[in-house]
Amino acid sequence: MPTVFVLNGPNLNLLGTREPEVYGRTTLADVQQLCQTRCAAAGLQLVFRQSNHEGDLVDSIHEAIALQQQGVLAGLVINAGAYTHTSVALHDALKALAAYKIELHISNTFAREAFRHHSYLSPAVDAVMAGLGVAGYGLAIDAIAQRSA
Amino acid sequence: MPTVFVLNGPNLNLLGTREPEVYGRTTLADVQQLCQTRCAAAGLQLVFRQSNHEGDLVDSIHEAIALQQQGVLAGLVINAGAYTHTSVALHDALKALAAYKIELHISNTFAREAFRHHSYLSPAVDAVMAGLGVAGYGLAIDAIAQRSA
Amino acid sequence: MPTVFVLNGPNLNLLGTREPEVYGRTTLADVQQLCQTRCAAAGLQLVFRQSNHEGDLVDSIHEAIALQQQGVLAGLVINAGAYTHTSVALHDALKALAAYKIELHISNTFAREAFRHHSYLSPAVDAVMAGLGVAGYGLAIDAIAQRSA
Amino acid sequence: MPTVFVLNGPNLNLLGTREPEVYGRTTLADVQQLCQTRCAAAGLQLVFRQSNHEGDLVDSIHEAIALQQQGVLAGLVINAGAYTHTSVALHDALKALAAYKIELHISNTFAREAFRHHSYLSPAVDAVMAGLGVAGYGLAIDAIAQRSA
Amino acid sequence: MPTVFVLNGPNLNLLGTREPEVYGRTTLADVQQLCQTRCAAAGLQLVFRQSNHEGDLVDSIHEAIALQQQGVLAGLVINAGAYTHTSVALHDALKALAAYKIELHISNTFAREAFRHHSYLSPAVDAVMAGLGVAGYGLAIDAIAQRSA
Amino acid sequence: MPTVFVLNGPNLNLLGTREPEVYGRTTLADVQQLCQTRCAAAGLQLVFRQSNHEGDLVDSIHEAIALQQQGVLAGLVINAGAYTHTSVALHDALKALAAYKIELHISNTFAREAFRHHSYLSPAVDAVMAGLGVAGYGLAIDAIAQRSA
Amino acid sequence: MPTVFVLNGPNLNLLGTREPEVYGRTTLADVQQLCQTRCAAAGLQLVFRQSNHEGDLVDSIHEAIALQQQGVLAGLVINAGAYTHTSVALHDALKALAAYKIELHISNTFAREAFRHHSYLSPAVDAVMAGLGVAGYGLAIDAIAQRSA
Amino acid sequence: MPTVFVLNGPNLNLLGTREPEVYGRTTLADVQQLCQTRCAAAGLQLVFRQSNHEGDLVDSIHEAIALQQQGVLAGLVINAGAYTHTSVALHDALKALAAYKIELHISNTFAREAFRHHSYLSPAVDAVMAGLGVAGYGLAIDAIAQRSA
Amino acid sequence: MPTVFVLNGPNLNLLGTREPEVYGRTTLADVQQLCQTRCAAAGLQLVFRQSNHEGDLVDSIHEAIALQQQGVLAGLVINAGAYTHTSVALHDALKALAAYKIELHISNTFAREAFRHHSYLSPAVDAVMAGLGVAGYGLAIDAIAQRSA
Amino acid sequence: MPTVFVLNGPNLNLLGTREPEVYGRTTLADVQQLCQTRCAAAGLQLVFRQSNHEGDLVDSIHEAIALQQQGVLAGLVINAGAYTHTSVALHDALKALAAYKIELHISNTFAREAFRHHSYLSPAVDAVMAGLGVAGYGLAIDAIAQRSA
Amino acid sequence: MPTVFVLNGPNLNLLGTREPEVYGRTTLADVQQLCQTRCAAAGLQLVFRQSNHEGDLVDSIHEAIALQQQGVLAGLVINAGAYTHTSVALHDALKALAAYKIELHISNTFAREAFRHHSYLSPAVDAVMAGLGVAGYGLAIDAIAQRSA
Amino acid sequence: MPTVFVLNGPNLNLLGTREPEVYGRTTLADVQQLCQTRCAAAGLQLVFRQSNHEGDLVDSIHEAIALQQQGVLAGLVINAGAYTHTSVALHDALKALAAYKIELHISNTFAREAFRHHSYLSPAVDAVMAGLGVAGYGLAIDAIAQRSA
Repeated sequence: MPTVFVLNGPNLNLLGTREPEVYGRTTLADVQQLCQTRCAAAGLQLVFRQSNHEGDLVDSIHEAIALQQQGVLAGLVINAGAYTHTSVALHDALKALAAYKIELHISNTFAREAFRHHSYLSPAVDAVMAGLGVAGYGLAIDAIAQRSA
Repeated sequence: MPTVFVLNGPNLNLLGTREPEVYGRTTLADVQQLCQTRCAAAGLQLVFRQSNHEGDLVDSIHEAIALQQQGVLAGLVINAGAYTHTSVALHDALKALAAYKIELHISNTFAREAFRHHSYLSPAVDAVMAGLGVAGYGLAIDAIAQRSA
Repeated sequence: MPTVFVLNGPNLNLLGTREPEVYGRTTLADVQQLCQTRCAAAGLQLVFRQSNHEGDLVDSIHEAIALQQQGVLAGLVINAGAYTHTSVALHDALKALAAYKIELHISNTFAREAFRHHSYLSPAVDAVMAGLGVAGYGLAIDAIAQRSA
Repeated sequence: MPTVFVLNGPNLNLLGTREPEVYGRTTLADVQQLCQTRCAAAGLQLVFRQSNHEGDLVDSIHEAIALQQQGVLAGLVINAGAYTHTSVALHDALKALAAYKIELHISNTFAREAFRHHSYLSPAVDAVMAGLGVAGYGLAIDAIAQRSA
Repeated sequence: MPTVFVLNGPNLNLLGTREPEVYGRTTLADVQQLCQTRCAAAGLQLVFRQSNHEGDLVDSIHEAIALQQQGVLAGLVINAGAYTHTSVALHDALKALAAYKIELHISNTFAREAFRHHSYLSPAVDAVMAGLGVAGYGLAIDAIAQRSA
Repeated sequence: MPTVFVLNGPNLNLLGTREPEVYGRTTLADVQQLCQTRCAAAGLQLVFRQSNHEGDLVDSIHEAIALQQQGVLAGLVINAGAYTHTSVALHDALKALAAYKIELHISNTFAREAFRHHSYLSPAVDAVMAGLGVAGYGLAIDAIAQRSA
Repeated sequence: MPTVFVLNGPNLNLLGTREPEVYGRTTLADVQQLCQTRCAAAGLQLVFRQSNHEGDLVDSIHEAIALQQQGVLAGLVINAGAYTHTSVALHDALKALAAYKIELHISNTFAREAFRHHSYLSPAVDAVMAGLGVAGYGLAIDAIAQRSA
Repeated sequence: MPTVFVLNGPNLNLLGTREPEVYGRTTLADVQQLCQTRCAAAGLQLVFRQSNHEGDLVDSIHEAIALQQQGVLAGLVINAGAYTHTSVALHDALKALAAYKIELHISNTFAREAFRHHSYLSPAVDAVMAGLGVAGYGLAIDAIAQRSA
Repeated sequence: MPTVFVLNGPNLNLLGTREPEVYGRTTLADVQQLCQTRCAAAGLQLVFRQSNHEGDLVDSIHEAIALQQQGVLAGLVINAGAYTHTSVALHDALKALAAYKIELHISNTFAREAFRHHSYLSPAVDAVMAGLGVAGYGLAIDAIAQRSA
Repeated sequence: MPTVFVLNGPNLNLLGTREPEVYGRTTLADVQQLCQTRCAAAGLQLVFRQSNHEGDLVDSIHEAIALQQQGVLAGLVINAGAYTHTSVALHDALKALAAYKIELHISNTFAREAFRHHSYLSPAVDAVMAGLGVAGYGLAIDAIAQRSA
Repeated sequence: MPTVFVLNGPNLNLLGTREPEVYGRTTLADVQQLCQTRCAAAGLQLVFRQSNHEGDLVDSIHEAIALQQQGVLAGLVINAGAYTHTSVALHDALKALAAYKIELHISNTFAREAFRHHSYLSPAVDAVMAGLGVAGYGLAIDAIAQRSA
Repeated sequence: MPTVFVLNGPNLNLLGTREPEVYGRTTLADVQQLCQTRCAAAGLQLVFRQSNHEGDLVDSIHEAIALQQQGVLAGLVINAGAYTHTSVALHDALKALAAYKIELHISNTFAREAFRHHSYLSPAVDAVMAGLGVAGYGLAIDAIAQRSA
């Protein structure tokens, strides 16, 4: 069954409690459930991860590369949180992954502090979605499902 | 019936012929059809426009403001093309519109020339979607439909 | 009778409804009335315009140039709105007008977003007035009246 | 009787002799007379100062604060000259003054050297007027008079 | 008969009267005549336009694209005036035109204000000519004629 | 008993041996002892950590957030070492912690290399102390103790 | 008896009334009392000054240099207010003082406007403390007392 | 007989072999022949030079100055190659030459690497031509011939 | 026996599969073998590591410091991959290591994206080698061997 | 008798004691004596001042202007110390003085910190001398004497 | 016999005497001997040059191009000294040479003044080596020998 | 007899004819005579050179180094003209010369175009003199004479 990776970066484990006026009150477990439901509907398997460690996220992308080389990767969604703005390592890892890749942000990063306007990931992915709230996870999985359909 | 505005900026009338390796071969008429179908399914009325004139786009947003003041606007999708990067006038017009607003780009503008990395619109909208191809139009309408559902 | 041009740029037709905490609740029709009264008192004829199109504003300045060449232009007041910050075309048109020219902003643009701090118009006009609210229009006409008196 | 402060910064004591092609031939005494006349007409009391010392100007603003706390300050006009571009101290002092404040420049500073385009005062005042010549003093007092009328 | 487009941007209708020390005293009608003569000599048909509206210039380039798709376009000369420095829309339109394209400026823009040193058009055209006065129009047509000969 | 977190970032385990002319010869164990003594005197419990991993520091701040939500956190002192200058993830984690937070540097970072002058942490903490040597740890704990006293 | 200089720059005489949401309601007289108490406890003599004049602050540092040359200076605390960000003269004066020097700010300047993030004083002092409120004065004197003990 | 100087800078001796996809396969000898033919037709004498030494090019311009002082210089064409972007010395030499001067580039330098977008020569010449291929040499000589005709 | 550390940063475990047009098809195991052979020939012991975690690389450098303090470290080679451009922590760790240190890149980083042109490591090492392919590892070990011979 | 003004800015009263490795051990009194001797030899009268107050230096330049208007000013030498780099007020005052003006620095400011490389005074004076030590004062007076001879 | 070019730029003739703390005491003649020995061992012929003239270095690269076109060039090593940082002409010449090219610096230029951090040569060569001392010449020749073996 | 080198860079051979409103009408031969007279008076031998070639100036400084190593160099004056702003090679050569070195400019370079405000030579010399006209040469020799006296 084709697999979708959904990776979440630092502080996203706090979702629902941290700055709720920016990120809302949905928790990451809720998001995982939302993704699970959406994937099930589209006949996709879900790998859902969160880590505060940049290296862990790199490792997870390497796992996705292995699946892709076996022909069972449908796509990857990455909300790298703060590492979006500082990680060349994630840029390089994503560059090495020859699959459909979507960069996702819950909030509209372009309407926040200047240091959130630049992303090292954007040039290494296919698409960018920001500001759609947690609903964005569902739309990103839809986008992957439509392409792999 | 709640209305969705889909506005298209300069050169998008060339869609399907201009730089097809970047934008694909779907025409703007195809996109309008895709939006029409999606809106119909969601019980939304579609206003679909294209203009090469910055002022026309400002005028169209003012029309949307009028609908919003009558309580019949579900949301607005704007692919402002090149004006994304140069128009403070569109920024101001969007700021004046108290509805759900999505900035859309067919290509991943963040992976192209540096002058396409900055958008005057982003701080004035709710969400940004880039690089999903013409499928992005459908997903944007879905996002509006889910919110107004 | 000597004429005063008062030109208004994009989104100023929304005056009184758009961001009233910044621009107040006076409408553009009110402003036109205020200008009319002030001009009448000073024996000046008023041409009052608004457009969301950069090219229209350029055209209007060309009309003013024609009047100036006939010796019947007392001066010009321009609130170019967003085009203040992006239009070299207006800079060039104003440079070509050999009359007394005042750049006007209702709000104090220098206390707002960084992209509103630079004006392409300022080096091409005689004077700049910002932050005086709609009362600024009256003071600008006074300034022209005092000079042509 | 409500009071208006008119503060003048460094080198303005030379007015009428220094770079007359930029600043004209009117002297600062003439300006004081002009302000006196205008204030008298509007039933306002005038405090008119000039100093080449940044600290003196800060001290004068503190005096204005004291009057404002007694409810007898109509407004303040400040032509800080060169300190406009270098003084965070004046910014802070003006921030502390809860009255109507106008920054004034005789010449159009935005059409001169680049280092005159930025003002530390602008974000701390209500309005900015530049390039109206010495007539600007009269218009500034009018603006204050109209507000306190 | 192969066609040459010669497009002129904002304020060029003032040619001969605006800043004659920079642009000379030849009018745009004179320039059109000069182009007509040169085209006739080379067996080329001339389309000569001027507009103060950015969108009109985009529209005209789209017309040229249509001719090019019919195989009857020899080339395009564009003096976009002020839009040279601010228009990504013209950049995109020119990118979409697969013909020989020359950017032209009457004055030497590189010897003028800093904001005239950057052109959004240059990366989208084949050649740039600046500072040759109105004679540049003739030389640009010669360049196109020599290529299509 | 209210708890104080003292977090130390990369290379601080080398304290006392690395560049002693900059950081002195006191070891991190000495610092821990100093903090322990100071906390004991103030009736505060100490959590003292060091890690070379950015993710570990994020995890530790999340632990502090948990304590704060239980009402038993007096404050947090963070010497993030090199991550001060590169970590948006720590910025975000600190933003999520609603307690008294002090950023601490043993050396005066503002008198060293330019890349040490900017801190991503500073806008997310209450106070910054730099250059007081290891004595700074004691003063920071004093500051927390005085506030929670 | 060893002496501590505590110097205060422009607008600090307004402490307690100016922007109390930023600086609190303690007055400068309160701060002087706090410093007096703290110095007395540590057997230190206090010189406490405030001026709105940059030159006065330079003069005061020169006085401190004279004491230091007599071997009776324990240290210096300087809250230069706005001059922090603009005064090379204070930088030079502090460089000339071979004593323990602490730069102090009541608010966290790094979390405020960008122009408050750079300090000309920092490279010329031993330590920087910002954001500790008026309590920072006490901690700074403690730091000096501990060193001279 | 009036003389035209055509100066060529570093690496232009490789023309026809170096990066032919950028510069074409015409050699510099071919270019000299083209210039010779064009000059002969216009009754102009040709001085054609190439050097890899910045100083040689300065020396050649000084020769041109000598001719100009004798009244026998029709104009100068300079393709300074790489020195275009780095040589203030050539700027100064050209400034000293009171004749008609054209800066020429075979390729469209504005569409290449960023360091080729700035020219030290442009503010010191009358006109700039770039991207016309070797045909540009002929057009430049035509421009000089038309002026001196 | 003197030891050489060879440290490899993020994504280098993908060597041979990731962007082979940039990095070639040799795997990291091949590189380890190459280093082993070269070290054996020179009588050096090899410690060869790879990690995707910045903190792991810092830890490894600390291990090297321990060996150096025991006098058995011949040198260190570090290919920090993406962390080269973002890690102040590695800069600081390397600064603390008083041994011969070489920064190595397989590709010529200076000929790639701008964000790869700056290295935080370079000021903290003795030498930099870039673009020699995997052969660079052998040459770096030679350089260390020649120095410790 | 023609007069020479020699003005000295902040901290120059410390000359001979402050950073003697940069400024030497000569005192300002020694410098005054040196200037006195040199002026006497040239038949010039000396006005020699030092102040730590920017406003005082402005006042002194105004005095010089008064002498110049009486035709008895030979020239002015100004070592504005730190105010060189921050004072637009001194720039303006010097601009108003129509006499021969030399900016002087004892040390070579261009070989020191970056913030000493820019001078607001330089565009307003005739000549700049830096790095000649206190001997520079003598040479500056010589330069004035030679001109007025 | 395949040839290696070793080119040395300005001031390298001073090697061994100029700033020996940076460059060591080996002379350029010593370096030539070292290169000769290394080349002989690898069966390579050596061309070794030094010049203080940018144009001479360009000329030498052109000689190398000629050899390469005859198929007898093994590679080129260039230590362009100061021209590394300023010469686009060398960039262009190296771009035209289709052989293995190594840029070499004796010192670690990346650890020195900021103006030495950028190299115009790097994007035009295969590899960069810096900071290996004169031993770097030997390693560079080894690298060429290994490739051509 | 101790020797003084006076080196002149590009275009200074044109002195007296090039832009006389900037540089005056004195020729370089006049300057040489002036220097000769001044040196003779001080018992110094003069070496006076001019070249348009950067490499020649480097060579000349190397000659001065040779004299300095023989103990017969009194000092060096260099007016490097345009190379002042572009030559790292001259910076390096001057750095290698352990003698008294003065950078000289006839005009006040700091009051001219921005690209003349930065000098690569300044950090490598002892003193800088600009704007004293050709009289500056005499004063520079005086400065050297006074030091070597």
